[in-house]
Amino acid sequence: MTITIDPQRLWNSLMAMAEIGPTENGGSCRLALTDEDAAGRRLFMEWCEALGCTVRIDRIGNLFVRRPGRQNDLDPVGVGSHLDTQPKGGRFDGVLGVLAGLEILRTLHEQGIVTERPLELVVWTNEEGSRFAPAMVASGTYAGRFSVESTLARRDRDGVTLGEALENIRFAGDMPVGKPRFASFLELHIEQGPVLEAAGESIGVVTGVQGMRWFDVTLSGQAAHAGPTPMLSRRDALAAAARLIDRLQAHACHDPDGDSRVTVGCLEIDAPSRNVIPGKVSLTVDLRHTKDGELDALEALFHRELASVGDTFGVTVQSERIWQSPVVHFHQGCIEAVEQAAQWQGVQYRRMMSGAGHDAVNVAAVAPTAMIFVPCRDGISHNEAEYTSPEHCALGTQVLCDALLKRANEA
Amino acid sequence: MTITIDPQRLWNSLMAMAEIGPTENGGSCRLALTDEDAAGRRLFMEWCEALGCTVRIDRIGNLFVRRPGRQNDLDPVGVGSHLDTQPKGGRFDGVLGVLAGLEILRTLHEQGIVTERPLELVVWTNEEGSRFAPAMVASGTYAGRFSVESTLARRDRDGVTLGEALENIRFAGDMPVGKPRFASFLELHIEQGPVLEAAGESIGVVTGVQGMRWFDVTLSGQAAHAGPTPMLSRRDALAAAARLIDRLQAHACHDPDGDSRVTVGCLEIDAPSRNVIPGKVSLTVDLRHTKDGELDALEALFHRELASVGDTFGVTVQSERIWQSPVVHFHQGCIEAVEQAAQWQGVQYRRMMSGAGHDAVNVAAVAPTAMIFVPCRDGISHNEAEYTSPEHCALGTQVLCDALLKRANEA
Repeated sequence: MTITIDPQRLWNSLMAMAEIGPTENGGSCRLALTDEDAAGRRLFMEWCEALGCTVRIDRIGNLFVRRPGRQNDLDPVGVGSHLDTQPKGGRFDGVLGVLAGLEILRTLHEQGIVTERPLELVVWTNEEGSRFAPAMVASGTYAGRFSVESTLARRDRDGVTLGEALENIRFAGDMPVGKPRFASFLELHIEQGPVLEAAGESIGVVTGVQGMRWFDVTLSGQAAHAGPTPMLSRRDALAAAARLIDRLQAHACHDPDGDSRVTVGCLEIDAPSRNVIPGKVSLTVDLRHTKDGELDALEALFHRELASVGDTFGVTVQSERIWQSPVVHFHQGCIEAVEQAAQWQGVQYRRMMSGAGHDAVNVAAVAPTAMIFVPCRDGISHNEAEYTSPEHCALGTQVLCDALLKRANEA
Repeated sequence: MTITIDPQRLWNSLMAMAEIGPTENGGSCRLALTDEDAAGRRLFMEWCEALGCTVRIDRIGNLFVRRPGRQNDLDPVGVGSHLDTQPKGGRFDGVLGVLAGLEILRTLHEQGIVTERPLELVVWTNEEGSRFAPAMVASGTYAGRFSVESTLARRDRDGVTLGEALENIRFAGDMPVGKPRFASFLELHIEQGPVLEAAGESIGVVTGVQGMRWFDVTLSGQAAHAGPTPMLSRRDALAAAARLIDRLQAHACHDPDGDSRVTVGCLEIDAPSRNVIPGKVSLTVDLRHTKDGELDALEALFHRELASVGDTFGVTVQSERIWQSPVVHFHQGCIEAVEQAAQWQGVQYRRMMSGAGHDAVNVAAVAPTAMIFVPCRDGISHNEAEYTSPEHCALGTQVLCDALLKRANEA
């Protein structure tokens, strides 16, 4: 039996979703639980309801679209991703995983195919973490990492809680968080890195996800007039921050494995003025590695360098680890289902670790899980220029379909 | 004839002015032409009018307080500074030079003393440059460096022009800009650096001002997801900025003369997010040196380092020199009047170059000019913690008084 998804219908859906919260340069802006996110969710729900599926919403706004199987007393096989974006996000990050699941439901519906286990297509709330830190908070709550109450109480920069934002857009559901449990869970996603494209490969069989740690750092020196303060008398918080960033970058760039990742994404000077030596600087640090032991070493190096610039520049330093995610290894059976599906397509693929966090990382704590990557142009993501070709979107969706059906029809 | 100023009256006026636009930690916030600046100006004008002086306002809001002399057909001797502050400024920067002039007028009034030349106490508009760039724009316009029209059209961050701000607070006067001309001009100011305090000296006889150049810099790389983008594939605009800052700092700190000054006071990431590699960073660069040739060399180094980080990090770089002020050498006769006055007081003093720009730099282009410095605690300025002792305020005012009377009574 050959079940083939419809590449054009998939692409049309992706482009239609991108018209919600469009940005100047062709990307999308649907920050979690804003009006744009709500509009994207409603469009998605209309599409699902047209297939006769039932949409349920849990207390933290996760959407669950059920397609019954032959044995509805069995746990469903889950598939999905997220619809929220970065402030200047692309058209594929998250959206592809959701709309690939929709395309599979449409194909099954069209062909009148019923799986053994029921299917459950999921849209996770606030994956990006741009509006409410941390990222992937809703799948983390589903997996029991956070309490529902603490998640509802997370605040954005304007002080609005996640719970209030859910109420505002009428997406606070009543299904208990953590339901339903999955027999398996699969997530298709764009790679968000340049590895597949550079190697000329079409599918990444994702075997796990690198560990990540997030820090908030403050450097406090002494604001003073730029002109008359001799260089050696200064306690310049920005000069200290610059040295810290440069040292961490240099270390990560010379890591022989190439598996260290260091990113300072935010940096703010307190009361900046062009002729005032910065007295206080706040910045974020994002550390990642594919091995927990190496990530420990990277964190230790970060703390040493931070202390060192504190001494050198006469600034006091503070750092707080606000979030972490250990290295995750996916489920062998799920990985093999994906690998087999890739082989069926006869395309070049590789087993690889994900460099980014995904909702599947959280789900992996409570259900057999794996992921599929497709290349994205120049490895660019979290950016309006993000692009994956219609062919790669379709290929990833077909591999997802085949792996999903394998898991859904297994004994 | 001994003319002695009143230290307590001077101090009381300084503390009264500091109550206008007070900040949380004991400083002042009177950004140029805000309601707070207007309130400070009105208090000052009341004090002057109580002495029978006439206050005139020019088209760009500079205040001129005239005290007649015996020969009112001669050009007056000028004295003054500014009342505007940084966002978190101190109680002495600028204010001391204005209220020292007021204290001298009060002393002369009390003792019934009339000088040969008339005296003119000046408050210059927008010295700090915090609200309207560049700094010292109004004394620069007085000296003919900028047209009145261009100055009135300068905009703050909210798009309000300097002209509109003047109208809003009713300080747009009708006196032509550039009047009156001064026979001499003297400005007392806190040092805003640590040199006098460290040497145990009480007076700086300021012989000139270092040259300064201001740049706006933009680094444009590629925003991308923090996790899956290998370090060596990145075009991280913040990493490039950090390297630039670190290189410039290192150079200035190792300058054998100790006369180079490099400051990055503002740095902003476009659309910052903790898990996005910064794609675009804007920053300011402030370069200063006591010798024009060395300042040329420092600027050349800055351009080389900027090009170098552009190459290294794969980012495009842009820089624009938005303002410059060459090295200034003050007038020998004025310098000698100040030095003689310092010697009369029998205190430790030094001849020195100013590290900061001052309105006197502009006035020096059109009139014989010099400055007097007094120490400030820990060299701290442009900061709420800025402090100069009552004794040093009084000593500086006395030296200013003696030098002023010498210049006002000379043939």
